[in-house]
Amino acid sequence: MKTNIVTPALRNIKIEDPLFAHYTDMIAEKLLPYQWEVLNDRLPEVEKSYCVRNFRIAAGELEGERLGAVFCDTDAYKWLETLAFCLESGRGREFEATADELIELIGRAQEEDGYLNTYFSVCHPERKWRNLTEGHELYCAGHLVEAAVAYFGATGKKRLLDIAVRFSDLICRIFGQGEGQIKGYAGHQEIELALIKLSRVTGNKAYAEKARYFLDIRGQKPNYLVEELKRTGKDRIFPEFADYDALYAQSYLLPVSQTTAEGHAVRAMYMYSAMADVAREFGDNEMKNACRRLWQNVTEKRMYITGGIGSSGHLERFTADYDLPNDRMYCESCASVGLMMFGQRMAALSGDARYYDIVEKALCNTVLAGISAEGDRYFYVNPLELWPDNCLAGTSMAHVKSVRQSWFGVACCPSNIARTLASLGQYIYAQDEKSVYINQLISSSLETVIKDARVKLRLGSALMDKNRFSLSIEADRPQSFTIRIRIPEYLENPVFVLEGREIAPVIENGYAVVAVSHAGTQTLEVTGRIKPRWMAANTNVRADLGRLALMYGPYVYCLEETDNGKLLSNVFVSADTAVSVGKAVDALPGDLPSLSFEGKRLESGLGDKLYGEPAFSFSSQQFSAVPYALWCNREPGEMLVWLKATV
Amino acid sequence: MKTNIVTPALRNIKIEDPLFAHYTDMIAEKLLPYQWEVLNDRLPEVEKSYCVRNFRIAAGELEGERLGAVFCDTDAYKWLETLAFCLESGRGREFEATADELIELIGRAQEEDGYLNTYFSVCHPERKWRNLTEGHELYCAGHLVEAAVAYFGATGKKRLLDIAVRFSDLICRIFGQGEGQIKGYAGHQEIELALIKLSRVTGNKAYAEKARYFLDIRGQKPNYLVEELKRTGKDRIFPEFADYDALYAQSYLLPVSQTTAEGHAVRAMYMYSAMADVAREFGDNEMKNACRRLWQNVTEKRMYITGGIGSSGHLERFTADYDLPNDRMYCESCASVGLMMFGQRMAALSGDARYYDIVEKALCNTVLAGISAEGDRYFYVNPLELWPDNCLAGTSMAHVKSVRQSWFGVACCPSNIARTLASLGQYIYAQDEKSVYINQLISSSLETVIKDARVKLRLGSALMDKNRFSLSIEADRPQSFTIRIRIPEYLENPVFVLEGREIAPVIENGYAVVAVSHAGTQTLEVTGRIKPRWMAANTNVRADLGRLALMYGPYVYCLEETDNGKLLSNVFVSADTAVSVGKAVDALPGDLPSLSFEGKRLESGLGDKLYGEPAFSFSSQQFSAVPYALWCNREPGEMLVWLKATV
Repeated sequence: MKTNIVTPALRNIKIEDPLFAHYTDMIAEKLLPYQWEVLNDRLPEVEKSYCVRNFRIAAGELEGERLGAVFCDTDAYKWLETLAFCLESGRGREFEATADELIELIGRAQEEDGYLNTYFSVCHPERKWRNLTEGHELYCAGHLVEAAVAYFGATGKKRLLDIAVRFSDLICRIFGQGEGQIKGYAGHQEIELALIKLSRVTGNKAYAEKARYFLDIRGQKPNYLVEELKRTGKDRIFPEFADYDALYAQSYLLPVSQTTAEGHAVRAMYMYSAMADVAREFGDNEMKNACRRLWQNVTEKRMYITGGIGSSGHLERFTADYDLPNDRMYCESCASVGLMMFGQRMAALSGDARYYDIVEKALCNTVLAGISAEGDRYFYVNPLELWPDNCLAGTSMAHVKSVRQSWFGVACCPSNIARTLASLGQYIYAQDEKSVYINQLISSSLETVIKDARVKLRLGSALMDKNRFSLSIEADRPQSFTIRIRIPEYLENPVFVLEGREIAPVIENGYAVVAVSHAGTQTLEVTGRIKPRWMAANTNVRADLGRLALMYGPYVYCLEETDNGKLLSNVFVSADTAVSVGKAVDALPGDLPSLSFEGKRLESGLGDKLYGEPAFSFSSQQFSAVPYALWCNREPGEMLVWLKATV
Repeated sequence: MKTNIVTPALRNIKIEDPLFAHYTDMIAEKLLPYQWEVLNDRLPEVEKSYCVRNFRIAAGELEGERLGAVFCDTDAYKWLETLAFCLESGRGREFEATADELIELIGRAQEEDGYLNTYFSVCHPERKWRNLTEGHELYCAGHLVEAAVAYFGATGKKRLLDIAVRFSDLICRIFGQGEGQIKGYAGHQEIELALIKLSRVTGNKAYAEKARYFLDIRGQKPNYLVEELKRTGKDRIFPEFADYDALYAQSYLLPVSQTTAEGHAVRAMYMYSAMADVAREFGDNEMKNACRRLWQNVTEKRMYITGGIGSSGHLERFTADYDLPNDRMYCESCASVGLMMFGQRMAALSGDARYYDIVEKALCNTVLAGISAEGDRYFYVNPLELWPDNCLAGTSMAHVKSVRQSWFGVACCPSNIARTLASLGQYIYAQDEKSVYINQLISSSLETVIKDARVKLRLGSALMDKNRFSLSIEADRPQSFTIRIRIPEYLENPVFVLEGREIAPVIENGYAVVAVSHAGTQTLEVTGRIKPRWMAANTNVRADLGRLALMYGPYVYCLEETDNGKLLSNVFVSADTAVSVGKAVDALPGDLPSLSFEGKRLESGLGDKLYGEPAFSFSSQQFSAVPYALWCNREPGEMLVWLKATV
């Protein structure tokens, strides 16, 4: 089945959900100005970005050393992309002039031939395209293109798009199988999916062809990246690449032949997303099957219950099936952003709602957890179990931070979460010739045109407090189309009432299909049951065996020290421990309820002794759990998702 | 109380215990020739040592690049020290000529002024003493001295001692508080305890004074090592020192002021050992108190049940109190060797047997586990829980090897375990003017002189199979002295029968004190009860809470996949699970029994699903546990010490 599913423009979507509107408002109102200050190194206590400064230096307008991560140009691109999504949603207008100035600066930093990268232009012009493994040129180019496409879409202004096109045209000339072209590919995937976007917005198929080239040449032998890194010798950028291998950037096999998720999780997600794009763009079934296999491996064997991925505490990478340690892993925020991107594309490719189960899991847990309620603090690493005392510098837990950080030396996550939440509407709605897809039950509205009818949808969800949602559907003329509503598996026994009459919609690919044919407004009311659920992991997940996690709807809940005291690791519950749905915690955004239950604390009975024959004893305690998405927004401390089970 | 406790010469001790004699015989017969081949790079499949080759190059007898770790001269020194202990025990004579040749080569590699280090002599003569943080010159010097003292003690030959003295004299001139002297100290402690040994064997107190200097100047501000590393700039040796801190080499505070075990565990143990030596040598009570505090912190809050130490999976270092993860830590073999050294010195300093509880724990578990039964394979990292599938290159588990290795790029452990086991007798017996101390109940014999009597002791232990041991005491003339026998806490209700009559010896500092006054042979029979015990950890040990480890005597037992199948993490027992003492496994050395019990396997009941509502179920299974000391001597696979408990 070939689908033509697209996402509607954000200008036609309005987020009304109290939790998500908090984040989208906050991004427009607080995060954009905060990150702009960071990009300009104007906040004294915050790690320097050097981003804007570097563009000035590259443009020849400032003297000085180009500083910061090799790829930190992307801080600006992702800020622009976030702003573009805000502008398209009707917010952030006060930054448009600033953005236009920044775009001009970026333009002045672009070289004559279209080349644009402050690191190589300023520091190592002689090494351009010679360290694809570490240099991130194509990665930066990809984010430039994404920003340009978004900014053009939001404002209709072409300046940034022109810059991106010039650079992309250079890349298309430089890379390829032809004589004199570099037969290499990106050390960090991103250009591939960006070129697909550029191809769609410009109508120039050559960009899509180049995206396909980048996927087709990858994994050929000898391994381009591994061989290149050998040649790089003393000019290496990253000491941690001492143990670089072909798995790391998914260049160990042709993408189309890959079956397991390997290497750096963000690189993997961006590549799989591009594979799904290419599969669709070229009707490539082999590629589509590869995407399916990879999706299956990730989501059925290598993903945390929070939608986090990347189990290694070193190099942010995948490890082995069912290897899901809860405290030492990465679960990088960007990797879950990437999982949302991949899932969205798989759903567009297949028309199957099940992909959005995982998008929702990643969004409602890891992606939200990656950012503070105020928008100015971020997690790069998202553990499911935190004991602040052992997250010590110089140890193997140094990457795990016990509180969100104001910025990072490697600052990919803050702006990546921002652009994702700013474009949230695109994860809620989609449409094709004859259907509107509602992929997330997040209160919001959409105005669109289907066939020749103007259609307004308004989704009012009270799922978490009242276990129901309603959808008003307004068409300005009689037209036959369908609304396809994803019914998540946690909504039990849904009953559909259309205009007061119970209906039994067909469930197709996870969507309840409601046919509309006449003009005017209709209201669909759906009620069901959502209950707090104790979840277990597969027996093969060693880290979770004999443990239980509490979920309510799509939200994973956790215990925090501030509510429950220290030493959460000695809390026991059982699969039939009763859970009460309580009030939302005032200090947290949205109105997600807290959950409470009576559990037990285990004591070994050894007093001060380190080891001895146990005298185990239990004491009862009332515990209160909050959504993992919102943890560490109050007093910092211990946090735990997987509680021990009395079995 | 000032003690004069010393260890008797190995020539007067004979190990007869079937397990330990296996190792001491194996070291003399198999390990010495194996490691000699490795040191000469003659084994094709084994990681190169470059050790002997480097001395040839330094001596000007071979052209070529000096290769291998900066400190790999110590491979030769520790091999010589191991051989010396074998020679003193009456074995390894066939290597003496080889050793003498090696010593001559070392002598030829020594510079005119006494300097001796192949790395700096050959590669960077201009950087001598300028990178104490990374350069390991003083560390190498210390191992040279230890080897020289041992070789002199075993053979009476002075050549190596002269070399060591010349180098030590240079060090004494170079370092100090005087004008023109370097006010630095070792980046890796070892020289301090070595200089104490040299002082004792030469009678030259200046070496002990210099050892004290190295401890007294350490930790003064500004931090010598941290400042030096800044100056080192581009000449740095170790990329992993990017996050070097003052804790790492215990230079953050004056040693005498330190209260918690911090930084690299081996460095810490070597320093604490030297502190105990200095405390005793100079009657320094403040230093003694610091040693006690550090011992307490290590053994009561930061030590695994196996006597392993170093909880970080990065930089082999200590982390926080009660932070004892079972799969990702280091527990470096050398660190447990160092813990034995520290414990031995604390016992000598205090006359307290309790220190030997920990020495026994480290010896009977981690140190033995560090070496294969055949002596040619070694663990550097000693996890308490191994799942081979997730010990993947390029991940945060890459340091954990699922099978012992033939050699290492950083090859400290193989020769360190060897020299420790070769000198085992010194951990069994000690004596002062009026007592012989029996610190380990390991079958063996000792001939010594106490006051003017020639005394022969023969300890015959059948503790593990018959729960008893006997001691025959033979004195050639009437003389009054005491035998002090450490009674380990796992030997319950010991009954002492001397010459057929039950006695009730005083228990003093953990020793049963048996007075001897007449000539001839007496036999002491001690019977008690040793039972397999399910042990728990302190409630604060998050990694072990709700888990049980099985011990029998001093031995921690583990489950191996070869006996019990895969997925050991789903095995549950309870604190009252009955354990049967079974036969020893034929393929394993010694005759330690296996232990068997009926446990249960937990299933989550999710089928192929990764997460879902559980349908927990148990199935019973008979399990067989073997001593952790002997794991991975058969078919490799999963291994587990801490089993989950049904509580």
